[in-house]
Amino acid sequence: MIITVTLNAALDVTYRVPSLRPHTTHRVLDIAERPGGKGLNVARVLADLGHHTVVTGFAGGPAGDELRRRLAAVTRADLLTDALVPTAGPTRRTVGVVDAASGDTTMFNEPGPTVSPAEWASFVEVYRSLLASGEAGAVALCGSLPPGVPVGAYAELVREARSAGVFALLDTSGEPLRRGLAARPDLIKPNADELAGLTGFSEPARAARDARRRGARAVAASLGAEGMLAVTEEGLWRALPPGRLTGNPTGAGDSAVAGLLSGVVEELPWPRRLARAVALSAATVVAPAAGEYDRAVYEELLPQVKVDAAG
Amino acid sequence: MIITVTLNAALDVTYRVPSLRPHTTHRVLDIAERPGGKGLNVARVLADLGHHTVVTGFAGGPAGDELRRRLAAVTRADLLTDALVPTAGPTRRTVGVVDAASGDTTMFNEPGPTVSPAEWASFVEVYRSLLASGEAGAVALCGSLPPGVPVGAYAELVREARSAGVFALLDTSGEPLRRGLAARPDLIKPNADELAGLTGFSEPARAARDARRRGARAVAASLGAEGMLAVTEEGLWRALPPGRLTGNPTGAGDSAVAGLLSGVVEELPWPRRLARAVALSAATVVAPAAGEYDRAVYEELLPQVKVDAAG
Repeated sequence: MIITVTLNAALDVTYRVPSLRPHTTHRVLDIAERPGGKGLNVARVLADLGHHTVVTGFAGGPAGDELRRRLAAVTRADLLTDALVPTAGPTRRTVGVVDAASGDTTMFNEPGPTVSPAEWASFVEVYRSLLASGEAGAVALCGSLPPGVPVGAYAELVREARSAGVFALLDTSGEPLRRGLAARPDLIKPNADELAGLTGFSEPARAARDARRRGARAVAASLGAEGMLAVTEEGLWRALPPGRLTGNPTGAGDSAVAGLLSGVVEELPWPRRLARAVALSAATVVAPAAGEYDRAVYEELLPQVKVDAAG
Repeated sequence: MIITVTLNAALDVTYRVPSLRPHTTHRVLDIAERPGGKGLNVARVLADLGHHTVVTGFAGGPAGDELRRRLAAVTRADLLTDALVPTAGPTRRTVGVVDAASGDTTMFNEPGPTVSPAEWASFVEVYRSLLASGEAGAVALCGSLPPGVPVGAYAELVREARSAGVFALLDTSGEPLRRGLAARPDLIKPNADELAGLTGFSEPARAARDARRRGARAVAASLGAEGMLAVTEEGLWRALPPGRLTGNPTGAGDSAVAGLLSGVVEELPWPRRLARAVALSAATVVAPAAGEYDRAVYEELLPQVKVDAAG
């Protein structure tokens, strides 16, 4: 079983409009709603790969109810367990307005609910009991922190995972990432910007080595069209997708996290973990719906990902 | 008691963003949600004026639940009775994005739920029983029709009101207005565009007379800063607000409907109905929150509205 944590979950809403014109009124052509937030995206892909996954974090209010209803209706809902903790404040919506003419998206992200100290304590209790169940093979700690959650939250959650002997992957940015590193997560998955922001180095290999010095046991950096770069105690790898893919990169990083984590619990060697992450990521970019991945494309690309040990 | 009908109710959501830039991501600074749809706006103002008001129409899904919760929490909720009929499809949201820098609003209107024949039949039954209660002094039929509702719906509802001896005001546009006129509503309240669209005449007095020939017993046209023009069997009046007011016109027409209808059930003469409508409308334009009216401004403006009989 894999745990994914989404402290700042969202109901992702997509509005398609004929053409976006500021300061006018738009008829929305159609609406799509899906459970959002990085950890929930990761969980959906993990379940699709056949892994029993428990999602936790927070959900509240009408958008939280809708999120949970939709989570219970995903393709492999049989493999997903909802252990979200209720909040009094409402789960945020993220509204993406897609211009049907140009295909461009304009995002409006609501602030998350303020999490009370009692709600945070309830969450930590649920998280601890999941770790203590003896079934957890890994945990993914994903995304930003909602107001009210202590900025050192991820350090605490990484420590809990490590003391329970559960592999901890941390995928966040800014100060929560910086603080989280102090607790020595087993793996972080920054993108190029996040890695540069953390370390001050723009060259990915140098930055990844620096991130390891700051506390990460391993770093798998997602570099967009350049695939992934991993620096672990065993060495350095570069994984490249076959050719350039165009599409919507939303959720590609979350699919990569699912690929890495599935490889961890299946005890695959690093090159195979990376190949899976890169193929899933690419299959997410080309899928028509944001945040979904194309299974056939994934299976076609997987053997074509080139992984080189370098350094 | 006054009945207001809102077949295409909405949960009006307002997002304030620092500055709207298409194709970028915006952090929403704050969110406001209120029950929306013309008939609900009319009902809120009527209750505020001290009239017991029953709201009916449709509400469904999470946005419908939220709308009903908020309706139960308005200032004079003690005077509002919720007789909305549930739909399986979700009530639409209208999202207004306010650019905090310029004050301009960009609207995104979700499509309404498709109303099933059984839901329409349930509504008609509720509507009939409200008319038959013997307590209804007037009914306001407001706004657009959601998918699934027959285009001749307002004609049917006007006929029901007239056969129950209840004064019927119709405030809609396009084909639903055209069809509704055939049933001879007691009053219509088009704006200048709606009136021109209906009759083909751009001169309001000529257009209003033509609308009466098409079936309206009386016409009160809202002309923005030009106040109102009414053509009834008793004659023609023009009502002008004192001076030009700037602000947000959202809901000004609905406040005018509430002013007219309260005057009808209080059996005020036409000039006083019009003065009330114009003062409420102006007090809505100057109120800081969209669709609310400023009570003090209303009371100050009311004696200053100039009503002239002309023709």
